[in-house]
Amino acid sequence: MRRREFLGRAAAFAAAAPLSSGPISSLARAQAAPLRADGARVNGWLAQMDSIGRTAGGINRVAYSEADVAGRAFTLGLFRQAGLAPRIDAAGNIVGRLEGTQPSLPPIVIGSHVDSVTDGGNFDGPLGSFAAVEVARSLREQGNRLRHPLEVVVWSNEEGGTIGSKLAVGEPVDLDSVARSGKTLREGIGIVGGDIAKLEAAVRPEGSVACYIELHIEQGGRLDQAGLQVGVVEGIVGLRWIEVVIEGFANHAGTTPMDDRRDAMLAAARFTVAVNEAIRSEPGRQVATVGRLVPTPNTRNVIAGRVDLAVDLRDLDAAKVERFAARFRHLGQEIGAATQTTFTFRDATSSRPAMSDPAIMDLVEGSARALGLSTQRMPSGAGHDAQELAQICPMGMIFVPSVGGISHSPREFTKPEDVANGADMLLNAVVRADTRV
Amino acid sequence: MRRREFLGRAAAFAAAAPLSSGPISSLARAQAAPLRADGARVNGWLAQMDSIGRTAGGINRVAYSEADVAGRAFTLGLFRQAGLAPRIDAAGNIVGRLEGTQPSLPPIVIGSHVDSVTDGGNFDGPLGSFAAVEVARSLREQGNRLRHPLEVVVWSNEEGGTIGSKLAVGEPVDLDSVARSGKTLREGIGIVGGDIAKLEAAVRPEGSVACYIELHIEQGGRLDQAGLQVGVVEGIVGLRWIEVVIEGFANHAGTTPMDDRRDAMLAAARFTVAVNEAIRSEPGRQVATVGRLVPTPNTRNVIAGRVDLAVDLRDLDAAKVERFAARFRHLGQEIGAATQTTFTFRDATSSRPAMSDPAIMDLVEGSARALGLSTQRMPSGAGHDAQELAQICPMGMIFVPSVGGISHSPREFTKPEDVANGADMLLNAVVRADTRV
Repeated sequence: MRRREFLGRAAAFAAAAPLSSGPISSLARAQAAPLRADGARVNGWLAQMDSIGRTAGGINRVAYSEADVAGRAFTLGLFRQAGLAPRIDAAGNIVGRLEGTQPSLPPIVIGSHVDSVTDGGNFDGPLGSFAAVEVARSLREQGNRLRHPLEVVVWSNEEGGTIGSKLAVGEPVDLDSVARSGKTLREGIGIVGGDIAKLEAAVRPEGSVACYIELHIEQGGRLDQAGLQVGVVEGIVGLRWIEVVIEGFANHAGTTPMDDRRDAMLAAARFTVAVNEAIRSEPGRQVATVGRLVPTPNTRNVIAGRVDLAVDLRDLDAAKVERFAARFRHLGQEIGAATQTTFTFRDATSSRPAMSDPAIMDLVEGSARALGLSTQRMPSGAGHDAQELAQICPMGMIFVPSVGGISHSPREFTKPEDVANGADMLLNAVVRADTRV
Repeated sequence: MRRREFLGRAAAFAAAAPLSSGPISSLARAQAAPLRADGARVNGWLAQMDSIGRTAGGINRVAYSEADVAGRAFTLGLFRQAGLAPRIDAAGNIVGRLEGTQPSLPPIVIGSHVDSVTDGGNFDGPLGSFAAVEVARSLREQGNRLRHPLEVVVWSNEEGGTIGSKLAVGEPVDLDSVARSGKTLREGIGIVGGDIAKLEAAVRPEGSVACYIELHIEQGGRLDQAGLQVGVVEGIVGLRWIEVVIEGFANHAGTTPMDDRRDAMLAAARFTVAVNEAIRSEPGRQVATVGRLVPTPNTRNVIAGRVDLAVDLRDLDAAKVERFAARFRHLGQEIGAATQTTFTFRDATSSRPAMSDPAIMDLVEGSARALGLSTQRMPSGAGHDAQELAQICPMGMIFVPSVGGISHSPREFTKPEDVANGADMLLNAVVRADTRV
């Protein structure tokens, strides 16, 4: 565990760099009357982004695709307009920096991502990315200079397993794995302007970041159902992506008697049902999903000889994730024996649960109170770049409501007033963190 | 039912055209000593064909693809070498003709197809097509002139639902349906040299064909398991392709609680298991297969919002096919209600069981006896162009063994001696039919 406690770090920094008597403390200003970001501007940028990678099925800006590159180009333009001379680090992340009054301090980092899932929505990622740009721009335009440098980062390939942020914290990544765009990470990182020969240069060591705060849509329906405005994230669930290959034998669907078959599709169907029954067999918030399934040859009159599928398994409790992964493996072996097929399991991606820093949760709540916004503490069922950053610095996340709890869907939507609230929340949280870190 | 009885027709023809005193009767020759085709030549052509459309996954000459066009070009060359000046009819079928001594008689038609399934084998189709060319070539080279004209036909797009032969017998076909190659039938028929504006010209009315005989690999394992050389086909099972669309709601796999889901993949899995259990719940040779399944968006961290799948259902008893189709529909409605998804059913392709003509079965068995080959009567679990021809003329089929019963697979194989036996059988059956029809 490389995670560090925020309060301990805050104390250390307080000793090294006490509040200066320089420009008027942002903290004092924020507590007296909260700062405001330009929410209309963020909503406008989101509306422009909505036309990039929009297809009949939804937003398709999968990492390293042409649409992803186009979305990043639009985002780079926003960085430049904000005065954040952006650079692309070796991992393909977009990085902009606003200098602080105390250059020796490590930066406060804010940001999110702009790549999407297949047939996704326009708010998952762009909201937090654009709000972070807006926070830097507002601070600059309003003449509010932080003590810490402020870095705005748009992480590359979040939806493919937080690849850009993993590389930024030095986590191992299989560069030969294939992204949704069909490109390997090795190819894709080059396409978005990274340099795989210099990945080490993109690594941020522990202690090099004061804290990381990310604004994101909730992607679930708790805030919307409860009529609340802001979610204070307690932690991010651990995620396991298990790739399963089921091998049977391809044969003619008309001439092969039912008893002579080794039908990989039937085995995959039984497994999908069994995974669902298992995950629901005990109380708790754990989830498991078979969302991807590719039969071969996938034709009407041929018994499937092979099925590749993936299980997405999540919970805040790492031990529970481990236990269910083992149970799924056991179910696969049983079904394989019963259907004369063979199951092979591989863990494609795995992340430990990541807990938010309690002091950041407090200052997020303080910001909401100052802005007059209602809050609820909640876990994040989705993975985020913040979980990677939590390995090297104190981390916090701010959620705003998703209408109907819909996400990873073309119907994903967050109301303009909630977008504006999110930008205000991020701005005030950054200003408060600046005085505490 | 437009099917006609062979014996009735034979009697009618016998009256109209009694055996002439012209060239020595082929029948007499065949019964005295069976004719021989050049089996080595057929095996050589199959070996050449094996390189066309061969990929890592198997033979891919799906209808209207570039590989299909290449396979047809090779086949057209064989027609020309055999002296069968080939033409392409409006439906895209390749037709060659050898004139008989009695030009007023309707033709005996023999043939098969050369298109393949996805990742299929090299014998399903080409064997019967090339053997038919060889029969015409042998007759010509050996100076055996039939009374009837002999037509060799390679039907287009057999694997997509016997499209070429359906059009040739005037069956309705949806020209806007999409073939495996991604092209509509409308586009594809043009690609292979047909002319959709003149489809009526390709229709063969009832009574215009003396009889149809097709040689094919068995595609099942009965002959191979029993150590027999020739299958005498009793009939072809009825086939129903049922397309099922399951609509749920696409949402985030991490943030959507298990109880709030409308998971189309889970519904599809339950349905696939239910279809398998239903078809096996009563005795008989009926088969049902889910071989094609396409989830949307088909990505690891999104609950599937939609699944398109197809059920392949077959039996020799048309009423049983009807009954199971209704049962599957009922199962879909039940599973839809339980999973909050909606099931929509559409019959994509449907063919009635087609019975072989008893007199053709007899003369096929007579040919085998003359050639010293062992036989067994059997149904065909696979669909064939012969089932369409059965609507306008007496029909028969000859099977040779598939090693291990494997078909629609790159491991599909028929031994060279069985290929040669098949060509000999087809030659002698044609000669015997010529004296009977």
